[in-house]
Amino acid sequence: MLKISILGGSGYAGGELFRILLSHPQVTINQVTSRKFAGRPISAVHPNLRKIIKLMFVHPDELEKCDVLFVGLPNGAAMNIMPALMKKAKKIIDLGADFRIHSQSVFEDWYKKKHTQPSLLKKFIYGIAELHRKEILKADYVSCAGCEATVSILSLYPLVKHGLIENRIIIDAKMSSSQAGIAPSLSSHHPERSGVVRSYMPTGHRHTAEIVQELVPSFTTSDVASEGKRDDIQLDVAISATALDMVRGLLVTIHTTPKKGLTEKDLWKAYRAEYGNEPFIRIVKERQGLYRYPEPKILQGTNYCDIGFELDSRSNRLVVIGAIDNLVKGTAGQAVQAMNIMCGLEETTALTFAGLHPI
Amino acid sequence: MLKISILGGSGYAGGELFRILLSHPQVTINQVTSRKFAGRPISAVHPNLRKIIKLMFVHPDELEKCDVLFVGLPNGAAMNIMPALMKKAKKIIDLGADFRIHSQSVFEDWYKKKHTQPSLLKKFIYGIAELHRKEILKADYVSCAGCEATVSILSLYPLVKHGLIENRIIIDAKMSSSQAGIAPSLSSHHPERSGVVRSYMPTGHRHTAEIVQELVPSFTTSDVASEGKRDDIQLDVAISATALDMVRGLLVTIHTTPKKGLTEKDLWKAYRAEYGNEPFIRIVKERQGLYRYPEPKILQGTNYCDIGFELDSRSNRLVVIGAIDNLVKGTAGQAVQAMNIMCGLEETTALTFAGLHPI
Amino acid sequence: MLKISILGGSGYAGGELFRILLSHPQVTINQVTSRKFAGRPISAVHPNLRKIIKLMFVHPDELEKCDVLFVGLPNGAAMNIMPALMKKAKKIIDLGADFRIHSQSVFEDWYKKKHTQPSLLKKFIYGIAELHRKEILKADYVSCAGCEATVSILSLYPLVKHGLIENRIIIDAKMSSSQAGIAPSLSSHHPERSGVVRSYMPTGHRHTAEIVQELVPSFTTSDVASEGKRDDIQLDVAISATALDMVRGLLVTIHTTPKKGLTEKDLWKAYRAEYGNEPFIRIVKERQGLYRYPEPKILQGTNYCDIGFELDSRSNRLVVIGAIDNLVKGTAGQAVQAMNIMCGLEETTALTFAGLHPI
Amino acid sequence: MLKISILGGSGYAGGELFRILLSHPQVTINQVTSRKFAGRPISAVHPNLRKIIKLMFVHPDELEKCDVLFVGLPNGAAMNIMPALMKKAKKIIDLGADFRIHSQSVFEDWYKKKHTQPSLLKKFIYGIAELHRKEILKADYVSCAGCEATVSILSLYPLVKHGLIENRIIIDAKMSSSQAGIAPSLSSHHPERSGVVRSYMPTGHRHTAEIVQELVPSFTTSDVASEGKRDDIQLDVAISATALDMVRGLLVTIHTTPKKGLTEKDLWKAYRAEYGNEPFIRIVKERQGLYRYPEPKILQGTNYCDIGFELDSRSNRLVVIGAIDNLVKGTAGQAVQAMNIMCGLEETTALTFAGLHPI
Repeated sequence: MLKISILGGSGYAGGELFRILLSHPQVTINQVTSRKFAGRPISAVHPNLRKIIKLMFVHPDELEKCDVLFVGLPNGAAMNIMPALMKKAKKIIDLGADFRIHSQSVFEDWYKKKHTQPSLLKKFIYGIAELHRKEILKADYVSCAGCEATVSILSLYPLVKHGLIENRIIIDAKMSSSQAGIAPSLSSHHPERSGVVRSYMPTGHRHTAEIVQELVPSFTTSDVASEGKRDDIQLDVAISATALDMVRGLLVTIHTTPKKGLTEKDLWKAYRAEYGNEPFIRIVKERQGLYRYPEPKILQGTNYCDIGFELDSRSNRLVVIGAIDNLVKGTAGQAVQAMNIMCGLEETTALTFAGLHPI
Repeated sequence: MLKISILGGSGYAGGELFRILLSHPQVTINQVTSRKFAGRPISAVHPNLRKIIKLMFVHPDELEKCDVLFVGLPNGAAMNIMPALMKKAKKIIDLGADFRIHSQSVFEDWYKKKHTQPSLLKKFIYGIAELHRKEILKADYVSCAGCEATVSILSLYPLVKHGLIENRIIIDAKMSSSQAGIAPSLSSHHPERSGVVRSYMPTGHRHTAEIVQELVPSFTTSDVASEGKRDDIQLDVAISATALDMVRGLLVTIHTTPKKGLTEKDLWKAYRAEYGNEPFIRIVKERQGLYRYPEPKILQGTNYCDIGFELDSRSNRLVVIGAIDNLVKGTAGQAVQAMNIMCGLEETTALTFAGLHPI
Repeated sequence: MLKISILGGSGYAGGELFRILLSHPQVTINQVTSRKFAGRPISAVHPNLRKIIKLMFVHPDELEKCDVLFVGLPNGAAMNIMPALMKKAKKIIDLGADFRIHSQSVFEDWYKKKHTQPSLLKKFIYGIAELHRKEILKADYVSCAGCEATVSILSLYPLVKHGLIENRIIIDAKMSSSQAGIAPSLSSHHPERSGVVRSYMPTGHRHTAEIVQELVPSFTTSDVASEGKRDDIQLDVAISATALDMVRGLLVTIHTTPKKGLTEKDLWKAYRAEYGNEPFIRIVKERQGLYRYPEPKILQGTNYCDIGFELDSRSNRLVVIGAIDNLVKGTAGQAVQAMNIMCGLEETTALTFAGLHPI
Repeated sequence: MLKISILGGSGYAGGELFRILLSHPQVTINQVTSRKFAGRPISAVHPNLRKIIKLMFVHPDELEKCDVLFVGLPNGAAMNIMPALMKKAKKIIDLGADFRIHSQSVFEDWYKKKHTQPSLLKKFIYGIAELHRKEILKADYVSCAGCEATVSILSLYPLVKHGLIENRIIIDAKMSSSQAGIAPSLSSHHPERSGVVRSYMPTGHRHTAEIVQELVPSFTTSDVASEGKRDDIQLDVAISATALDMVRGLLVTIHTTPKKGLTEKDLWKAYRAEYGNEPFIRIVKERQGLYRYPEPKILQGTNYCDIGFELDSRSNRLVVIGAIDNLVKGTAGQAVQAMNIMCGLEETTALTFAGLHPI
């Protein structure tokens, strides 16, 4: 049994980690920390876990040694204590943004803060298993991708790797309220948030940095580069993020320009080549029915990333559609998938929930 | 491995049965029938099962022998073919209303149709395990309770059994759209159905018949009566059903009159006596937090029935609150729970999903 | 032109007052105060008024004399400054709770605070025009009813006045998020508030006090009592309040016991007698269609109170259903209706918006 | 008083026309037709109009002569009877798609049907007042724009006219359920439609034809061309349409490429030049607050088109955001605005509803 702990477990990602790990047969949850809720039961914050788990939150200062430590702290908080945490656990999986970007300057440019542990940046493997499975297998430190980056990278990776699209990519992201976390504010106040189609970030989304890093080989680690990614591309990735009236789920509508002569067959071929054996990726592209393309509502609670595409017969455009549950494949599920790989367990363990329909 | 089949598997209850049984380690799904979708993949109707199951729907005429047969047909359709179905499977679990009411006249009074197989009525055990576990253990035929009846009966049973309330009970039921099934109509048309607080059945809800039957011993089987239910009560149960803008979930606010001198302690005692060891019942009554009482939104996909109560300090009233997922504890989960008992399996198998938060 | 001002105009009721008064041809909005937003444009808080009104919020200390002053302050804040406000305006309409209850002891019992101006309590007329039109006509001071009280009183008044029901009344209220005001909190945080059927107040709702006051003549002013209300009744009113996932609107399902032999005809007669000429009350009771009973979603923005009823043919029960927009008929619209009456204007002026369908 | 009639008044656009015209002081509604509901009251279909209007639907065969006829028929139905209708009314405003496209071949290419009255195509003025006010003033026949086209054209027109953007335009449209009309189907069935982020038309949206026609002068009538539009552009317009869980409202996120050196100031200048005096267009671009950009939820029931924009500081991209109520500015409000102009009335009459907040 792996002894795991969660540092910062009172947020939405922490709760979701919990829910998933509870059904993991090879794991024992040792400690879950919360500065604010120390001494109170987990279910006080995560009401779905009532009667299922008796654990109490402990103060972060009481963190004991463990096999795997998940870190779920606000951006900027993990980097300072990371050296100390590395003494507590051999394997660390960080759910925050501090160690996603390999380049210090790129990090500082997008996050507008100094990185205090630049030497650790290269030690973290970017957590998307579909791109970095081999590295994660050998890794001690993994940094999970941002949710919006996860679905964008997975949707685009085969197209970029196989050289099927031009270098200008526009990502129109439809976001849910759980992405903003558990702290209330006027922007999350129900009368103001309900029913919105809010253009809260028409430009400037930070996940752009991760997406470019992962899709362009010159920014990635050498292992990945040697797998044959094209290194002559200069990606121009632009995101517009719109918040919708939903709690969970994330859909990206990606507008790309196909290379001349590109056919549907080429697209199927590329996606099958990269994802044919992936347990958590489904190509969703039906001729009939209501769910012809990826739909986030039926992915709630699942670790799937559903991907679809449509060539525009009148404009030179390829529309790629990707959907995930931002708290699962976009955060906690991705983290458990990485843990399974790092620890030599079956990759899909505890991640097989099929999702609900209707919902 | 139990060989199971589902007759009528293209509706919402059928899909939910499927989802649950897929994760059941002691079960093989042999056939799922659909007149309309015969020959098409299950996932064409239940998109959450994409890539998870390869089964095709078969025509009901092709139904083979099996160990357990689940019947998910519209009200009135199961009764006529039940004798034939009894030759196909030793154990049958009916999800419809045809065999819930033990009394032919009561059935015909409420359902406004002739019962064509009255002799079979007594052969079916009413499927709520918390009330009829011993009988289900020995049963070949189980009829699952209606969803609204399930949550009302479970909420009220300890109070009636322990003689804590007067005989007039008002159930204010808040319902979701999946309860009306998969067939579209103007009443389910999104622009008309979204955002409603629709008083679609202020009086006359059919589930009243089941609730009275289960709560008043004179209507119940002798096994249950001998367990000590009071037989001097004449229940007056009245339901008002309001449809809300939600897809899954059901909450009842039950207005009752407590017997003189009733205390909170008496209530806790009665609930604990009846449900202290029940795996799927939780008493939810907190002094603080947002989820102080049962909340259907966090029960989606789970087999829990959450129950809470509050004594009115200014009026002689006891408010009881119950919540379930109508498609799980209210239908498909209840059916699998019954199957587990009938077949000597661990009762909670395949039913341990904890539910999602936030959602 | 009436010169009006709004004290406390940055909340939801203040914004709604504004919207309504903007279309009032006999009114000039002189000042709108806000401690927090003084100096900023009205539209900074009420984005629907963008480009429509150029007014800036002023600090409450700058309040000038005016003809009619609307007071929209938190409960407990208006009472202390009321004597000073009475020097600023001849006519005052209070939207808060401080002057709704005529009895000091009843107020203090329910609101758990000392009333600092008990001598003023009798000076305020309760603002429901359908019950107090004659008094409002002569009044200088009006206190608008609570939203939940408004719809309950209007639904029940003809039944109580005509002696058609027994004295035990159970009000199952379905509430929206705007009722809790503009201040964010965890309970209004979108991931927690979206999709709820939250039993936030199963017992103990403060509006009970107003409802009893208005329905029982011994608590009401002599004018009303002399109109012929029965004085032998002792009402037992109990409210259970459930919060739904909607921003505006309020529906009450009221469970009552009809007097022996009561017929539908008697009910129609009583409602027509009281409301036959009321411009803002509609009896909604259809045999067919989707909107057979009152539906709050189509009342958004309107000053209507829709009322319906159904006799239970199996239980001795009369279900009464009432719906309003809590911010209009429940607050700001009621206030403008009172102003129109007090100032000798056409009662329906600025209140004729029909409502949207679909919505 | 203008005598107006509505041919096809039982749909959502017809109901909205009704609601708006009821508050129009210079208009009498003579007849509203419905084949299906002839003889039944208007409020049977449009429940918001209960007690407000007593009119009954009449059969279309009974249509009498009138001053202005609004035509709200399904696509393809209006063209055949248009010659007959022209004998009934001097002025006709068509809400459908049959006469929007000036070119027969373009119409037939996109709508996949033969146009039976090609000679009438040139007689209809495209109904967006902001582009065609002078022509509408003299027109007898107006064809209202499609809702998605309306907001896209209004958002883009100043940019194209002033030559500020490159010729490739990607419109990511977020749509509501009322756009699909009043006929129920599985795709509008609440359990399937609620909560969706459905990519129902990633490519191939028919409104593309209108948008190109209106933005490129070579496709437009000479009157417009002579106003100085650039005629050297070849627009490549591509739409992706996603259906959200909302009943009313439409938002477009438009991804464009700015001409070199374009500044925010240039953009403000162009929008102000074109729309500075427009009563129904607001440029929404705030530095703070929740409603910094256009938000469809607060436009429900209004005739506004709100437009915002943001230059991407890292990518060479200009994001333009437009929002309307699809049933008002996108259909019925646009029609009444055109009627007001055609009939020499004040353009804003009956269209001044400010919209609700919160909602």
